[in-house]
Amino acid sequence: MRVCSYLMADGTASYGVVDGEALVDAGKGLRARHRDLRAVLAAGALAELASADGERLGLSDVTLLPPVANPDKILCIGLNYMTHIRETGREAPTKPSIFTRYPSSLVGHAVDLVRPKASDWFDFEGELAVVIGKAGRAIPAARAYEHVAGYSCFNDGSIRDFQRHTTQFWAGKNFDRSGSMGPWLVTGEAFGDPAAGEMTTRLNGEVMQATPLSDLAFDVPALIEYISTVTELLPGDIIATGTPSGVGLFREPRLFMKPGDRVEVAITGIGILANRIVDEA
Amino acid sequence: MRVCSYLMADGTASYGVVDGEALVDAGKGLRARHRDLRAVLAAGALAELASADGERLGLSDVTLLPPVANPDKILCIGLNYMTHIRETGREAPTKPSIFTRYPSSLVGHAVDLVRPKASDWFDFEGELAVVIGKAGRAIPAARAYEHVAGYSCFNDGSIRDFQRHTTQFWAGKNFDRSGSMGPWLVTGEAFGDPAAGEMTTRLNGEVMQATPLSDLAFDVPALIEYISTVTELLPGDIIATGTPSGVGLFREPRLFMKPGDRVEVAITGIGILANRIVDEA
Repeated sequence: MRVCSYLMADGTASYGVVDGEALVDAGKGLRARHRDLRAVLAAGALAELASADGERLGLSDVTLLPPVANPDKILCIGLNYMTHIRETGREAPTKPSIFTRYPSSLVGHAVDLVRPKASDWFDFEGELAVVIGKAGRAIPAARAYEHVAGYSCFNDGSIRDFQRHTTQFWAGKNFDRSGSMGPWLVTGEAFGDPAAGEMTTRLNGEVMQATPLSDLAFDVPALIEYISTVTELLPGDIIATGTPSGVGLFREPRLFMKPGDRVEVAITGIGILANRIVDEA
Repeated sequence: MRVCSYLMADGTASYGVVDGEALVDAGKGLRARHRDLRAVLAAGALAELASADGERLGLSDVTLLPPVANPDKILCIGLNYMTHIRETGREAPTKPSIFTRYPSSLVGHAVDLVRPKASDWFDFEGELAVVIGKAGRAIPAARAYEHVAGYSCFNDGSIRDFQRHTTQFWAGKNFDRSGSMGPWLVTGEAFGDPAAGEMTTRLNGEVMQATPLSDLAFDVPALIEYISTVTELLPGDIIATGTPSGVGLFREPRLFMKPGDRVEVAITGIGILANRIVDEA
């Protein structure tokens, strides 16, 4: 099952199930019980969406939001593919490197990404995102998948000069509307083993990053175990699992995204997250 | 005016105004209009609290929460006092170093801090916290104080081995109930110039850190300008301005907090934030 969150034409926030090029809205009954997808996950009620009977809408009739638009936590992993670790010139890590994004830094599929006035060092980072379905603290890796609701594509859009201002990545990773997630959440049983897929990032149709997801230095269970040692994971929390080699910063010559560009993150079994770049108004 | 958030004896969350050893609860009327202090700030309604007419309670009758218990953002500044920068062996920064804490990592005054099972490297960091009162993006330093609601004491409790796992501080700064904020928010006009005060951190009565707040490398206006370049600051957002020298990690011998210890962060014009240490259950 593929589920997504969106604004309808009248501005109402809703969620529904994807069916080909169409989507079936949750409808008022389901929305009265669970006001958004985070609430659906918190209630363990994802299966209820299979019987959604709301309005049938075209995907292009709605404005997609990140699949969980208001998560408690968005945890991003730095340096989690050996190919990317080598291109940054760093040592192989012994623990996952974690920084956070705020929801205000993300848009959904087909919504414009914003290059800020403060910088033109605007880079892409294709990533696999994991959505937590069941709360847990100190989750052993062997039981980690019980806590996963599903997966999505993620573009960890980065303002590279700000990211390099200090050792901490926060400033480069939190510009408003500088990253994206979507187009939808594919449930765990539909997606299968996350290590079996491939991920490709394209800029204006040209392949920039291409990797098997099996190349993750810390896999999904290892990330869930480490993070939940620190704090409780909650339904709707997002883990963006890190990016492979090929980012614009380390290309020769450097390549940053500019207005009019189209960036895509494609993952087998999920789909394509595509966004156009615009300048900050 | 000093305002605080708390749980009443029956578990109801409320907020009120401190009056000596007592506090005047917001009361049902005010709470119906603004359900918590974050909502009061968002409505620009702090002045309404001066006429709070709820129940009169003893400070010891309630369980204090961080003054804003559910902020959108808790932004912490690393390495912001030259004395602390020197003790870590780093260069003077040219930009503020920012990492985040989640609200789950903080408790209020007089509530126990939790040393986790995962580590006994539990360290203190006394800090001045700023509470944002008015939303803003790209706020110039010269207008920054217009966006400040008030100030509080902050203990940026740190699990040092996790903080050092990678370059990113997140893991060391987000253990559940490992930090604290309070006892209350002192409004900006009552506190005056934040650079005029002094801060002292004591462990079991012994002074560990003592600094004039004027020693901040990046002062409050500079921090607000930098952060709001990246993202919009919202009412209730917290900026913890960094810690001076004297933390346990760099003492010889090293000194970490253990069960039964009492840690205090005292700031002139605010008061004392005190917490006892317990082991994770």
